[in-house]
Amino acid sequence: MLFALDVMGGDKAPAEPCKGAILACREDEELSVALVGAEDAIRPYLESAADSVRSRISIVKANEVIGMGDNPSASIRSKKNSSLRVAMEMVRSREAVGCISAGNTGAIVAGGVLIVGRIKGIDRPGLAVPIPSLKKTTLLLDVGATVRCKALNLYQFARMGAIYMRSLTGIENPSVGLFSNGSEDIKGDGVISAAREMLASESAVNFEGFVEGKDLPIGLTDIVVCDGFTGNALIKFGEGIGEMVKVMIREEIESRLLPKIGAMLMMPALRKMAARFEYETNGGSPLLGVDGIIVKAHGNSRDRAIAGALHVASGFARLKGTDVIKESFESRA
Amino acid sequence: MLFALDVMGGDKAPAEPCKGAILACREDEELSVALVGAEDAIRPYLESAADSVRSRISIVKANEVIGMGDNPSASIRSKKNSSLRVAMEMVRSREAVGCISAGNTGAIVAGGVLIVGRIKGIDRPGLAVPIPSLKKTTLLLDVGATVRCKALNLYQFARMGAIYMRSLTGIENPSVGLFSNGSEDIKGDGVISAAREMLASESAVNFEGFVEGKDLPIGLTDIVVCDGFTGNALIKFGEGIGEMVKVMIREEIESRLLPKIGAMLMMPALRKMAARFEYETNGGSPLLGVDGIIVKAHGNSRDRAIAGALHVASGFARLKGTDVIKESFESRA
Repeated sequence: MLFALDVMGGDKAPAEPCKGAILACREDEELSVALVGAEDAIRPYLESAADSVRSRISIVKANEVIGMGDNPSASIRSKKNSSLRVAMEMVRSREAVGCISAGNTGAIVAGGVLIVGRIKGIDRPGLAVPIPSLKKTTLLLDVGATVRCKALNLYQFARMGAIYMRSLTGIENPSVGLFSNGSEDIKGDGVISAAREMLASESAVNFEGFVEGKDLPIGLTDIVVCDGFTGNALIKFGEGIGEMVKVMIREEIESRLLPKIGAMLMMPALRKMAARFEYETNGGSPLLGVDGIIVKAHGNSRDRAIAGALHVASGFARLKGTDVIKESFESRA
Repeated sequence: MLFALDVMGGDKAPAEPCKGAILACREDEELSVALVGAEDAIRPYLESAADSVRSRISIVKANEVIGMGDNPSASIRSKKNSSLRVAMEMVRSREAVGCISAGNTGAIVAGGVLIVGRIKGIDRPGLAVPIPSLKKTTLLLDVGATVRCKALNLYQFARMGAIYMRSLTGIENPSVGLFSNGSEDIKGDGVISAAREMLASESAVNFEGFVEGKDLPIGLTDIVVCDGFTGNALIKFGEGIGEMVKVMIREEIESRLLPKIGAMLMMPALRKMAARFEYETNGGSPLLGVDGIIVKAHGNSRDRAIAGALHVASGFARLKGTDVIKESFESRA
């Protein structure tokens, strides 16, 4: 199973993506990865790889890069030889099963729509992030692919999210919450009310009504659906809080002796806690609704996170997740 | 200076509001409070108060209650003898300088608009919450008064928030960030772009452009402006994370010895950290844009939080905050 990895995307490119590919291939013997990017930059990282791994890693040349500040649609259209575009083309041509990138999120979404293409019947794709909470891992979508949504988009996110969660976790009938500004029926706006009605009358979705901000860290439902603006606000706020907690602990440790000893004893627990907020490093975010597997890794991903994103992609591919979504939406748009 | 306190609002009514009023009057000799609610329920709590405090506390009878599940506008209109409505009427008649309630947020906003009335030139009010962050306290508004906003609303929130922050903190020219899904100019939607343009060309506002979720816990700007849906999502999510952190620490303490000792030594620091997420207990949320002082306390406020909300209200009253907002908007709509 070959996956195309955009090694030029992300803050730590190309080093960490290259290392991540080696790590993932070592962990999964059925995995093959095409490293897409500047050949000279990639080659040094491959020298350390064992032959059994090296034989499953190839280099696909691409001499342009889409930067974090580039306009998403414009750059995916014009930079025809960019690593991201070339990786996406490999998915479109079925040369690769899927593509992984830690690069410009907007360009990944634009490439998903413009190069790989949407699944028939899907109005807009949704980027999903697994969020660890007290009781379970909740899949939150959309976190930025579709900034403002129609009711139809929220409804489709719920159906796609349910298929994804069922495939990956084995939960037969994952529960779905619709994000709103309160749990009472009168909350939300016109779009959210309309989506609520669509979901309540959809037998294929185990819909549990509205959830609000405080329900997310508790883990009330397996899936939470919201528009991309809200989802983006939430995951970035959570990441910011994780950073704040780290700084506060550090300051506390530096200031006095007792908390210092306390923090040392608690360190594994505190680390575990802080790691919960690094949502995207906990796996990788699938772009659901496109005709191929696209997984976004966090911009500051290290090798471990890149390998995690590759495993997410291959796991969904093994379960033929894209086909399941296609069948669900083609049988009845 | 007399303030009307809705003692029937909130999860711990009427005990904690009554105790909070006594506490606040003890701390501030210029403060007088009218406890609005069921006389029989209030009287027992006043017995313990010293004469110097008791003399500044009065009871105003109101025999109806607006519950947390009641429809906001409908209940504020129909329940004419509810504690919240009576307290609001006291502000309208200028009998009281302001009103404080830990009750139904929607009803507080509806009462602010329908009973107290908006300031001339203000399109919609904004509910503001001070959020402690690493560098400073950031005022976030709106957190639920105006679920979906026009650009004009966001622009007016920025101007009102700046006046409020200037009054309360003495910061001469508080910085304002407009919440978006990224810091680049192309982010946001049509409403946010239009608000950005309005703010960029407004000399009375020290506008610093877009801020995103991760900037909030850092404290990039003194004020952050967003629509009520987003603000509500953020503060509730933060509160939920605070709860999650508490549960995780408890589980860690119960499970093994070393973290247990560590947690005990760190407890003051951990408590301080968890308290940061209890946004509304850190003061009280002013409803800006109405013609009188209205401060919302958190639904689960204890006496300390109610007293805090009373101090916020009296502090803003001393600085004639409502008049300053009125002058600013009446001179040029």
